[in-house]
Amino acid sequence: MNNFSFQNPTRLVFGKGQIAKLATLIPAEAKIMVTYGGGSVRRNGVYDQVVAALEGRNYVEFWGIEPNPRVETLRRAVELGKAEGVNFLLAVGGGSVIDGTKLISAAIASDEDAWALVLKGADRGGIPLAAVLTIPATGSEMNSGAVISREETHEKYAFYGRYPEFSILDPEVTYSLPDYQIACGLSDIFVHVMEQYLTTPDQSRVMDRWAEGLLQTVIEIAPLIRANKTDYRTMADFMFSATMALNGYIAQGVTEDWATHMIGHELTALAGITHGASLAIVLPATMSVLRDQKGDKILQYGARVWGIDGGTTEERIEATIARTREFFKSLGLAVSLTEAGISLDVIDTIAERFTASGVHHGEAANVDGEMARRILEACK
Amino acid sequence: MNNFSFQNPTRLVFGKGQIAKLATLIPAEAKIMVTYGGGSVRRNGVYDQVVAALEGRNYVEFWGIEPNPRVETLRRAVELGKAEGVNFLLAVGGGSVIDGTKLISAAIASDEDAWALVLKGADRGGIPLAAVLTIPATGSEMNSGAVISREETHEKYAFYGRYPEFSILDPEVTYSLPDYQIACGLSDIFVHVMEQYLTTPDQSRVMDRWAEGLLQTVIEIAPLIRANKTDYRTMADFMFSATMALNGYIAQGVTEDWATHMIGHELTALAGITHGASLAIVLPATMSVLRDQKGDKILQYGARVWGIDGGTTEERIEATIARTREFFKSLGLAVSLTEAGISLDVIDTIAERFTASGVHHGEAANVDGEMARRILEACK
Repeated sequence: MNNFSFQNPTRLVFGKGQIAKLATLIPAEAKIMVTYGGGSVRRNGVYDQVVAALEGRNYVEFWGIEPNPRVETLRRAVELGKAEGVNFLLAVGGGSVIDGTKLISAAIASDEDAWALVLKGADRGGIPLAAVLTIPATGSEMNSGAVISREETHEKYAFYGRYPEFSILDPEVTYSLPDYQIACGLSDIFVHVMEQYLTTPDQSRVMDRWAEGLLQTVIEIAPLIRANKTDYRTMADFMFSATMALNGYIAQGVTEDWATHMIGHELTALAGITHGASLAIVLPATMSVLRDQKGDKILQYGARVWGIDGGTTEERIEATIARTREFFKSLGLAVSLTEAGISLDVIDTIAERFTASGVHHGEAANVDGEMARRILEACK
Repeated sequence: MNNFSFQNPTRLVFGKGQIAKLATLIPAEAKIMVTYGGGSVRRNGVYDQVVAALEGRNYVEFWGIEPNPRVETLRRAVELGKAEGVNFLLAVGGGSVIDGTKLISAAIASDEDAWALVLKGADRGGIPLAAVLTIPATGSEMNSGAVISREETHEKYAFYGRYPEFSILDPEVTYSLPDYQIACGLSDIFVHVMEQYLTTPDQSRVMDRWAEGLLQTVIEIAPLIRANKTDYRTMADFMFSATMALNGYIAQGVTEDWATHMIGHELTALAGITHGASLAIVLPATMSVLRDQKGDKILQYGARVWGIDGGTTEERIEATIARTREFFKSLGLAVSLTEAGISLDVIDTIAERFTASGVHHGEAANVDGEMARRILEACK
């Protein structure tokens, strides 16, 4: 294992009826801003539960944080928060609302413009925030990370702010999610785990087993959710997996990759494809292009997660990549740029952006512009 | 999954050379009391590392917290801490030193006698503490629990205090551990996981997989450690497993048992047997006596952890219990009271104590005096 220092201070409040606990979880004297996305929370009953829990409390609402939250929108929330003297934020929504709220938190406590904070990469000094999660996917409810977009330049960068003080996860709020959103959520969870796992073996036995356990869980529940998305136990496993996949628990002392995410973010920024859907296209291609570097771990993953242990090394690697791609197909997601209706022009653009940034991604720091091009060529 | 609320605020600082970080991790103005056990830290170099890291800092030392820490000893530490105006505790040792320091923390901040706090069961209002771990076993370095003994009455109870602010885990400090202590540590880790896992299936897919992953890890590393206890990677897995087994991560939303531990604590209190060694005797007997109640989970455990999937249900359960007992034997531990040289008189005493306490242990709250007697009879 590599040396590491790890702490995750977020309180997880999980289960049926837990939204009502907002009343006791938020400090009594707080001046609250509740942040929302579109309007789905009005239809699925979450909004009513939040309003009931906050009865008698001092709060304002901010609506309209979009998928792939834009700094242009978030600046308006910061302005409102400053004007109202807000000192506690409650994000009610999916990963985008929570991500956006992390930047609002930092910017309310700062004199700098929100995009300047994003370009700095991190600011832990924000005001406290908490979350009521409605879409299991990004893990934002139990980490400090956020991904923020800037519309005018089609840029999209990671930002690290505060951890939520607490996050409420009620699996019943997932019953009304559209099938496509569930598919993208499952894809996102799966690839989060893979980015922390599919590097080299022999780093940590426990972390390998835990990552494999999450992958096995996602594979097991995906068809069950397709058959019935109102089974409490299954949806609880779905929601819990999303949080455990990206709260740092499975990353302790091991190398990480994240090249698939970096390429996926560019696809989202340029072509507007949903985050989880972008990953389903890129991950199998990353595995294929980097098969020499990742071969030993691909073999372990194939054997332990998919039961693939016959044939030559090359055959097992091929079979494992094929099973992974089949899994994404089984979710109903496109697994190539063409299938997803994305113009192949993005390949040049992304390769050039990677080259221009000078950053080399991946656990071996070798995913530069040229490697990104090879991976995207394998996504055609 | 059951509803739950979970938070673990301890920072884990893991790896080679990390003890030197004490200098930056403890607040500069703290008046520190460093607590130790016997003298093994003087021989394995840990003491020298701690002294070097604390150079120029304001601290006193308290020596002599024994295995199964006694309130009689801890009261002396409380007296010293109060007299010296101590406001930060650093436990350097194994689970007993850390457990004892949790009670010292609470009692320094309280006007009540330390044993009165133990009888209350919990007190979160203590002064901050941290740990440098030397023996992987109890998980005390990343939870709030402690087990405290009272010599004059041979009583032993659980107490919940503060979580450590941070814990430093350097796997190299385990290289000099005696074989017996390693065996007891592995047994303790294994049974911690089992107490949170071997109840009923179909509660949480992720928690089941993570518990099984820890069990598989312990089974895999046990013979490797016997062959070479100075292999960094193996000892890192050992140390990390101990912490992950009892920091609450694998208990989220699932029922727990702990009857084996309660019986084991009595064996330690009455016969002086090491904690981990007591568990190796009791766990297989608990599985055997409660095989109807735990049967479905025993089958899952047998199949996933030991690969046992042939034969009738009863045969598989028998084979799984036998494999579990063999595992403890392979550690070099006794698996019966007789083998351990413990008088069978303890059976009556423990059964009577359980009955007198009126507490029913186990996930089905059915391990009373009579059930404890049946389990102990199966330990003969």
